[in-house]
Amino acid sequence: MQATSYLPFCLILLVVLVLFPCSRYPLTTQQYVGCSLTTPWCGSWNRKYSILETQNPKSIAHSAETTHHPLDPLSIQEINKVRAVLSSYGPFSSSFPAIHSLSLDEPEKSVVLGWKKGDPLPPRKAFVIALLNGKTQVLLVDLDSSRVTSHSTHQGSGYPTLSMDDIQVALRVPLSDPEFNKSIMARGVKLSDLACISPSSGWFGPDEEGRRIIKIQCGSIQDTANFYMRPIEGLTVTVDIDRKEVVRISDTGREIPVPKGTNTDYRYTAQDRPPEMEPINPISMEQPKGPSFRVEDGHIVKWANWEFHLKADQRTGMIISQAKVRDSETGELRSVMYKGFASEMFVPYMDPDEAWYFKSYMDAGEFGLGLTALALVPLNDCPRNSYYMDGVFVASDGKPFIQSNMICVFERYTGDVGWRHSETFLPGFNIREARPKVTLVARIAASVGNYDYIFDWEFQTDGLIRVKVGLSGMLMVKGTPLENIHQAPNQDDMSGTLVSENVIGVVHDHFITFHLDLDVDNTDNSFVKVNLVKEETLPGQSPRKSYLKAKRNVAATESDAKIKLKLYDPSEFHVINPSKRSRLGNSAGYKIVPSGTAASLLDLQDPPQLRSAFTNNQIWVTPYNRTEQWAGGLFVYQSKGEDTLAVWSDRNRPIENRDIVLWYTLGFHHIPCQEDFPIMPTVSSSFDLKPVNFFERNPVLRAAPNFEKDLPVCRPTASS
Amino acid sequence: MQATSYLPFCLILLVVLVLFPCSRYPLTTQQYVGCSLTTPWCGSWNRKYSILETQNPKSIAHSAETTHHPLDPLSIQEINKVRAVLSSYGPFSSSFPAIHSLSLDEPEKSVVLGWKKGDPLPPRKAFVIALLNGKTQVLLVDLDSSRVTSHSTHQGSGYPTLSMDDIQVALRVPLSDPEFNKSIMARGVKLSDLACISPSSGWFGPDEEGRRIIKIQCGSIQDTANFYMRPIEGLTVTVDIDRKEVVRISDTGREIPVPKGTNTDYRYTAQDRPPEMEPINPISMEQPKGPSFRVEDGHIVKWANWEFHLKADQRTGMIISQAKVRDSETGELRSVMYKGFASEMFVPYMDPDEAWYFKSYMDAGEFGLGLTALALVPLNDCPRNSYYMDGVFVASDGKPFIQSNMICVFERYTGDVGWRHSETFLPGFNIREARPKVTLVARIAASVGNYDYIFDWEFQTDGLIRVKVGLSGMLMVKGTPLENIHQAPNQDDMSGTLVSENVIGVVHDHFITFHLDLDVDNTDNSFVKVNLVKEETLPGQSPRKSYLKAKRNVAATESDAKIKLKLYDPSEFHVINPSKRSRLGNSAGYKIVPSGTAASLLDLQDPPQLRSAFTNNQIWVTPYNRTEQWAGGLFVYQSKGEDTLAVWSDRNRPIENRDIVLWYTLGFHHIPCQEDFPIMPTVSSSFDLKPVNFFERNPVLRAAPNFEKDLPVCRPTASS
Repeated sequence: MQATSYLPFCLILLVVLVLFPCSRYPLTTQQYVGCSLTTPWCGSWNRKYSILETQNPKSIAHSAETTHHPLDPLSIQEINKVRAVLSSYGPFSSSFPAIHSLSLDEPEKSVVLGWKKGDPLPPRKAFVIALLNGKTQVLLVDLDSSRVTSHSTHQGSGYPTLSMDDIQVALRVPLSDPEFNKSIMARGVKLSDLACISPSSGWFGPDEEGRRIIKIQCGSIQDTANFYMRPIEGLTVTVDIDRKEVVRISDTGREIPVPKGTNTDYRYTAQDRPPEMEPINPISMEQPKGPSFRVEDGHIVKWANWEFHLKADQRTGMIISQAKVRDSETGELRSVMYKGFASEMFVPYMDPDEAWYFKSYMDAGEFGLGLTALALVPLNDCPRNSYYMDGVFVASDGKPFIQSNMICVFERYTGDVGWRHSETFLPGFNIREARPKVTLVARIAASVGNYDYIFDWEFQTDGLIRVKVGLSGMLMVKGTPLENIHQAPNQDDMSGTLVSENVIGVVHDHFITFHLDLDVDNTDNSFVKVNLVKEETLPGQSPRKSYLKAKRNVAATESDAKIKLKLYDPSEFHVINPSKRSRLGNSAGYKIVPSGTAASLLDLQDPPQLRSAFTNNQIWVTPYNRTEQWAGGLFVYQSKGEDTLAVWSDRNRPIENRDIVLWYTLGFHHIPCQEDFPIMPTVSSSFDLKPVNFFERNPVLRAAPNFEKDLPVCRPTASS
Repeated sequence: MQATSYLPFCLILLVVLVLFPCSRYPLTTQQYVGCSLTTPWCGSWNRKYSILETQNPKSIAHSAETTHHPLDPLSIQEINKVRAVLSSYGPFSSSFPAIHSLSLDEPEKSVVLGWKKGDPLPPRKAFVIALLNGKTQVLLVDLDSSRVTSHSTHQGSGYPTLSMDDIQVALRVPLSDPEFNKSIMARGVKLSDLACISPSSGWFGPDEEGRRIIKIQCGSIQDTANFYMRPIEGLTVTVDIDRKEVVRISDTGREIPVPKGTNTDYRYTAQDRPPEMEPINPISMEQPKGPSFRVEDGHIVKWANWEFHLKADQRTGMIISQAKVRDSETGELRSVMYKGFASEMFVPYMDPDEAWYFKSYMDAGEFGLGLTALALVPLNDCPRNSYYMDGVFVASDGKPFIQSNMICVFERYTGDVGWRHSETFLPGFNIREARPKVTLVARIAASVGNYDYIFDWEFQTDGLIRVKVGLSGMLMVKGTPLENIHQAPNQDDMSGTLVSENVIGVVHDHFITFHLDLDVDNTDNSFVKVNLVKEETLPGQSPRKSYLKAKRNVAATESDAKIKLKLYDPSEFHVINPSKRSRLGNSAGYKIVPSGTAASLLDLQDPPQLRSAFTNNQIWVTPYNRTEQWAGGLFVYQSKGEDTLAVWSDRNRPIENRDIVLWYTLGFHHIPCQEDFPIMPTVSSSFDLKPVNFFERNPVLRAAPNFEKDLPVCRPTASS
């Protein structure tokens, strides 16, 4: 959920005060947009800053940063240089375009793979997406020559990721509309208590084409910071973003009361008493000798037997590149994954009503998982001893800004067991062997409006990578006259669950599609479906009637690798290197291991499903193609679905023994319940990338156990 | 896997040395059976005791223990009393039977529910299963009156759980068989290097009925403690346990070499070098003020908002009873689950060969998950600050013995987030709220022969219970002439993966079926399937073509609650209390949330599947019936499947608004890989029991965040 953005009363005051300037894009704070904390008239209502803010680690000085690796994101200097190039670029000389994306154009894979530390960096280039006069401009800027080397205008459907300026502009538009103001007041909401969100419009046919439109819906912040739970139901303003005008107002819910604010504020300072439970003593993951990982040159994470490049990204949040693991026998660093990231999301709501049908968010491409990943809260989002990494992003004016502390990296010990064995029945051998499991986690938390998505990439010493997505934050709720479900004629007719008086938590799904460019021991790999098939024995062959047999099927083309998971037709899914055999002749491989997940059940021809056709299967495999990064297309906003993974894959290209990309979609169905109100306990699921005949044997066989003598000596602090 | 038990060379020496007596069943060590550590001729080969043993917490004195709660297990005094009663019981006066189970006969549920602390304990009774002259005896002994109050002889198929004496006897039988000895020597294995396992026989037709039989297979311990990886393939001795005689010897694999011992020993002391990775600094979960839970009266665990009764059990390992959670609004303790435990397991191997077809273990009922759950290894199986609980079990002579440190309870902080939200676009409100997740775990690790099963019950403050099963230990492997898969005519014809030279890891499944007697706010509950169904919109109704709707179906009878999970026909599965409504009218409920799992694909008429028909569905619901505890039947060994959950459920009893039991099967398919050799990194999966409209709102809304000032101050120890 989604994709929403909030214009609080502060912005309304903005209008009232004739655009008194708020300081924007400061280079040293984590806030992208908004009133500065020192602007006195901002947040006059009960503004209790989170006390957790005081615990933020110090920011790093980025202005002097240089780049060290071909995949390092653009530095502040590089961004400024690109901006200068664009400013003096002929076609933009009369009018500087709105920048929607300005980021590293990653060098060709072969160039990156050929580069070694100490080599000069390959030519640095910027990939720029900008809007000028309603047209999407796509440019390449060469930083060495300071020239625009390529420039085209996008012709198909879809627009770039919304900028904060787009949202600010859109949120202001309804305020000048008398009909809108009248409706707000008619519902008993003071304009100074208004807070609005900007759901994306989706795409629902020809009359929405040719211009950028967005929906505006509002709630009340009276008595709460959680206006998400106080929706003004049924009032939807469709706004033309570029013309800054109201296209249409739909006002259907005047009879629906605005839910009360009681018990909706989730901030610690707003609580009047502790929870009904015995207090929990302090517990902490302690590393008195410090964590075992290091981050070299700003982006290379080295830990135990792993090395990878980690960077923040405005669109996808976090990118893992060139993940390599050390061979347990030879000590050689071996390639596992060239690039892994959350490529797109799809979050359809299950309500066809006028104010709800369009809610079918694609958060990565529409709003940006990095742009919405604010500073993590130390000790609470991430444990002690975490390392925090900033993002250097670009605003619509082309200027860089810092998204501080948006990634944390930490070493984790959960009390889980790496491997173990006790000898039950073997006297003479008193064997009790167990090894603790310690892992390394890289995390972001994207707050896309109401919802919070926690993305974890967890690396294990046994070679496994677990990718986990946690959902928290607020439900997207619907106002209703109901205060008790007994007032409903038919509970099954509700689009969700009554989670508080006058508040329905609407049923919805979440799908997160990951781009997993595995390169197992090199680029040329194959995808093998290892199907477990029931075999019947022949008469007289065995007292057993049946058994399972593993049958290997190498996928020749893309159509062989479109996978819908089936409990009663199970398979393992391996990405192998057919040229790399173990001493026993098994191909070195990694398998993708799904865990709990969900599939999209929407009609394949439903516009949201057409646009998100990348969720039509749980697994896809495509040949590597530099431009196929975004499962929903490069230009997702209002797209019609011509540039999705499903479309690319329909070409049915060969995928055997070549550079391939694995795509996996992690899904959640969410039927809300009262426990999700007013803020949801985290729900999470994950999938694993797991070595399969990649190592000659258990790579952590020789790992040492924990000994008491090595563990820290701790005492409570004076205050605790 | 399984179910195997090991007669090492020590026992062979036993035979040679004319049964020199080993000390058995000592009350103060965790070893059930075997040579005492001071018997000098035991383990003369390279006996390196695990250095981890020295870290064991001190044992508790049990001899003076008294019982405090109706569900407390029998104390040592009570067991001794029952033994005395049985000794003087008429039918046993001439011959004391072999005791296979002697445990508390839990009082009627209504009695337990009516009992309050301070009340006298309800009458204490023992439930005894014994074998006398090949017949299974079932007795009830009343401890107050010191009388046998009930005694019957079991008539159907199936035998009680094997005793250690059974296994010892069976393992000795082949040694006196010249054909067996000749075959061992013909394969180049010295008799002094022999170690044998005792796979259960299963049931495969009439010629196996009427007597207790078991299979004996052996390996070599030359050059390794890991004889599991050195199988003597194809040599299977079928033994009549009670007659102590060889029934049949099958010797088909003389051409198959015994795999080498190189690189198979997993013990820390057997390693010659560290793993190929940078060392990991000490990391530890620290609680300088101590853990927040307490264990009252030996078995009542109280932590945060949870209370439950926890005990060890010889058959199932660990039983959680009367789990209650505190209401977040009223502070009232509310019932969630009357009883939860692993009821049965099913582990079929996928090889129809003579030496493999019977391998279809049912470990709980055949071998006992408690009996095989040895002492946990502190700091490695469980973190610092764990509380260790012993089991008081009964040997076949009716005497009590202590299974020490077999359960650990610990508080856990993993760095995960309980809930969070950052305001992305709301300037003026600088909101960054996050709460750490702290949980409580109860754990055992059952080493059923080669395989280790780690069972976790994890309690969260948000009301969720996660039940997790981890698999580690050794594969059950098959000897093969192959040293490289290129020597195989067809890789798909192998029954598994070549995991080392001459070693095939055979494909197998694991199914663990949990008995979950949920009592949501009281005993009378209903099972509701909340099905997500695709609805199509009417023409003109909405720009959307489709959406999902949650449709509630209350199960009337057992047949409505036989569930096969389907990705494309998704449902939630709620156990609700129809009489307990929230203020909004929602029924208080808990839902079971599956995660990654697997289904059995065997032919329904295959003997192993008949016996394990409880795996035919992933979910079942039965009306509460005191005798329906064991999904595979009370007498599983050699059973024909007449007493399974599937049979009970076929009566199709009403289950609406009454006391019901939920059954869930967690499954794993396991296609081995080289990383599983010589010991498997833990693989785990889980399911959740999660409140759904049970609380009026998020029960951890008011929880406090972590503050730096409350966390401990730690330093490394001098040695680290």
